[in-house]
Amino acid sequence: MTVMPFPPLAIDLLVTAGSIVPIEPAGVVLEHHALAVDQGRILAVLPIAEARKRYQPRKLIDLPGHALMPGLVNMHTHSAMTLLRGIADDLPMMDWLQGHIWPAEAANMNYEFCRDGVRLAMAEMIRGGQTCFNDMYFFPDASAAAAQEAGMRAAVGLIVIDFPSAWAKAGEYIHKGLALRDSLRGKPLIKTTFAPHAPYTVSDDLMRQVRQYATELGIPINMHIHETAFEVEQAVAQTGKRPWQRLRELDMLGPDLIAVHMTQLTEQEVEEVAHYGVHVAHCPESNLKLVSGFCQVHKLLQAGANVCIGTDGAASNNDLDLFSELRTASLLAKGVSGDARALPAAKALEMATLAGARALGWDDQIGSLLPGKAADFIAIDMSALNTQPVYNVISHLVYAINSRQVDHVWVAGQALLADGQLQTLVEDELRAKAGEWRHKITGKV
Amino acid sequence: MTVMPFPPLAIDLLVTAGSIVPIEPAGVVLEHHALAVDQGRILAVLPIAEARKRYQPRKLIDLPGHALMPGLVNMHTHSAMTLLRGIADDLPMMDWLQGHIWPAEAANMNYEFCRDGVRLAMAEMIRGGQTCFNDMYFFPDASAAAAQEAGMRAAVGLIVIDFPSAWAKAGEYIHKGLALRDSLRGKPLIKTTFAPHAPYTVSDDLMRQVRQYATELGIPINMHIHETAFEVEQAVAQTGKRPWQRLRELDMLGPDLIAVHMTQLTEQEVEEVAHYGVHVAHCPESNLKLVSGFCQVHKLLQAGANVCIGTDGAASNNDLDLFSELRTASLLAKGVSGDARALPAAKALEMATLAGARALGWDDQIGSLLPGKAADFIAIDMSALNTQPVYNVISHLVYAINSRQVDHVWVAGQALLADGQLQTLVEDELRAKAGEWRHKITGKV
Repeated sequence: MTVMPFPPLAIDLLVTAGSIVPIEPAGVVLEHHALAVDQGRILAVLPIAEARKRYQPRKLIDLPGHALMPGLVNMHTHSAMTLLRGIADDLPMMDWLQGHIWPAEAANMNYEFCRDGVRLAMAEMIRGGQTCFNDMYFFPDASAAAAQEAGMRAAVGLIVIDFPSAWAKAGEYIHKGLALRDSLRGKPLIKTTFAPHAPYTVSDDLMRQVRQYATELGIPINMHIHETAFEVEQAVAQTGKRPWQRLRELDMLGPDLIAVHMTQLTEQEVEEVAHYGVHVAHCPESNLKLVSGFCQVHKLLQAGANVCIGTDGAASNNDLDLFSELRTASLLAKGVSGDARALPAAKALEMATLAGARALGWDDQIGSLLPGKAADFIAIDMSALNTQPVYNVISHLVYAINSRQVDHVWVAGQALLADGQLQTLVEDELRAKAGEWRHKITGKV
Repeated sequence: MTVMPFPPLAIDLLVTAGSIVPIEPAGVVLEHHALAVDQGRILAVLPIAEARKRYQPRKLIDLPGHALMPGLVNMHTHSAMTLLRGIADDLPMMDWLQGHIWPAEAANMNYEFCRDGVRLAMAEMIRGGQTCFNDMYFFPDASAAAAQEAGMRAAVGLIVIDFPSAWAKAGEYIHKGLALRDSLRGKPLIKTTFAPHAPYTVSDDLMRQVRQYATELGIPINMHIHETAFEVEQAVAQTGKRPWQRLRELDMLGPDLIAVHMTQLTEQEVEEVAHYGVHVAHCPESNLKLVSGFCQVHKLLQAGANVCIGTDGAASNNDLDLFSELRTASLLAKGVSGDARALPAAKALEMATLAGARALGWDDQIGSLLPGKAADFIAIDMSALNTQPVYNVISHLVYAINSRQVDHVWVAGQALLADGQLQTLVEDELRAKAGEWRHKITGKV
């Protein structure tokens, strides 16, 4: 009697690769493995020979010179600000903001500006291996619509601020945000967060409302906190309290809070970040460019805090390249801590993937290549000369990669980038729109 | 009577571009200009319409979406170390050097290792817009030969060190270096420098010989100085003197000295750097990665010193991307000085071009697009989405560019990169060689 083999299983997609870095377990590189995808989810990560026996894929992609890893999660950006990229540089933060950025925004802000800016941003983010972004800006409805249209995963920040804007009157932000959230029910790629702008622009009353709704609805809160020494000093001068203390008293600290920047922290505040389970979104390049200060990443990690990473907006960076940001983060963590072992390569990769997923409460879906999670993953060409020879894939993904080596990007199994070409956004249209906005903003053709 | 027009002049090459950043004058962007090249030299930079009237080029290249600028000058690298890229990371400098790099070098060092490593490095450097590199390593004859073969401009360091190596016995370095220099007479792309490794590896006697020959022959001297606090502390403990003081007493300080790293400087030493006309080669990414310290770039520039930039070797960076290095330098100069105006974009571009040329005493030939200089220039595609929209070309070239946007590279009028393709080096061969060396070094296939 012969044993009948199992018939091969028909699946949507099989990608075979030179190596796979699943992020979970940490630090592992699986050589000559394949990723099996069906109905937008990861079915298995397994040796290529075994995969070929077990599956009959409708689409097979062989990438022997590539590494696969989870898509990057950009944990802080104001994506529409791509349209203001390079409009003003080499200025202290408040001069830059008050003298250049706010006037340009005030004169141009509308739904179309945000939609076109978000599309341009997504093109750059997808091209650079990002599958998810945590956005904070006006017209979050434009971000949500643009992300869905492009098939990109997004956490859309429901902006809350004391002042009126083109998006909402003062006092209307939470109401408009909740209405938007309601309209997004059942959209699997979109999550909402509350995005109170910063302690210095959001009153106690609004903070309390945000806390109440966030807890009731289970929505994360996403806020610029302790970005600059000036912000902290001003608060102390005006109220006698550091913003962190005020937020603690307002019950804002908790595992649903994503604290962006956090460059000004006492030893005790570092401990409290870990104690309350607050997530830190580190934006090293923006912090350097605006001289905001140095986030103590090594200390936060040693205290047990979850630290993720973001590019910030393109007006203060000036790109949305998270691989480059990650490299800066790892190098800077060593320089700032004085310890060359700080933020080693494997931990840095986790910071740009799983740590962001955790902060968004989305680690059941994304952030690592575990079976059952969404098929949000990317393929990087390791045969480029700047990553030759390959002694250590993880080292190269952090210290030597150029983000243009990302050739393929999938979100929930859909290809957003294939052989380096965008699949859901049209480059020429984005370029034309960028030119139109430049003309409108500067008066120059 | 009609005025006869001048007949158009036949020339080798005319490149028309959306913009040209000539570096001299500083901060200037020439829109819709062309660069005329004949016999390897820049003939003129002029408006496109005028260029079309005046010249009859044998080759015409129209690049309306590109910016032209001088090729970048990588002022410090150990180029053959590409073959050790990523072999050890996340370690303090002395553990990294003594535990990993020196043993790997000792086991593999020969002419072929250096030749193959330099070729791999040049491919990456050319791909990233570099036209000249200042090399310091063993087998400088291999660097010189490989650079000439590839048509790349190089300053080849005649290594001087107390210890024997596969390249030379102790006491033979200067002799071998001078013999190599002699064999390179009449090679216009190759210059030599003396490269005494560092104060802690070169005796007073050798230093005096280097000083004497350097002065007699008019060769620059190129040395790691004050790379780490440890180096300075150790010298003080052993001799009672900081290395800088010892070098001053040995008469090493002068406008022919390129001091590499310089992360440890007192206020007085900063003044002395400017006073003696010493050039500083800043390597920010290597300094961060190895926790060497922060070079006070802003203070050096304010004191009037000439500061240029290098990637260092690929074993401590881990790429040779000078555009990325420049961006790190500009961001870090702001963060370290606490002044957002530090190292603004135009000054940063000068640092990566003209400042390097000056340090090598080569600014009569390269570093800016002035008529009469060598035609060492590059073309960068500004239409990429990460540099859209374009408010300010110079800002984008520093803060937003991805080095893969470099599409064309010329050295002395010869195309080394055309439409993103290497012209004088064969990618597949380099990749195969890198794999062979990896196999030899690790025993793994």
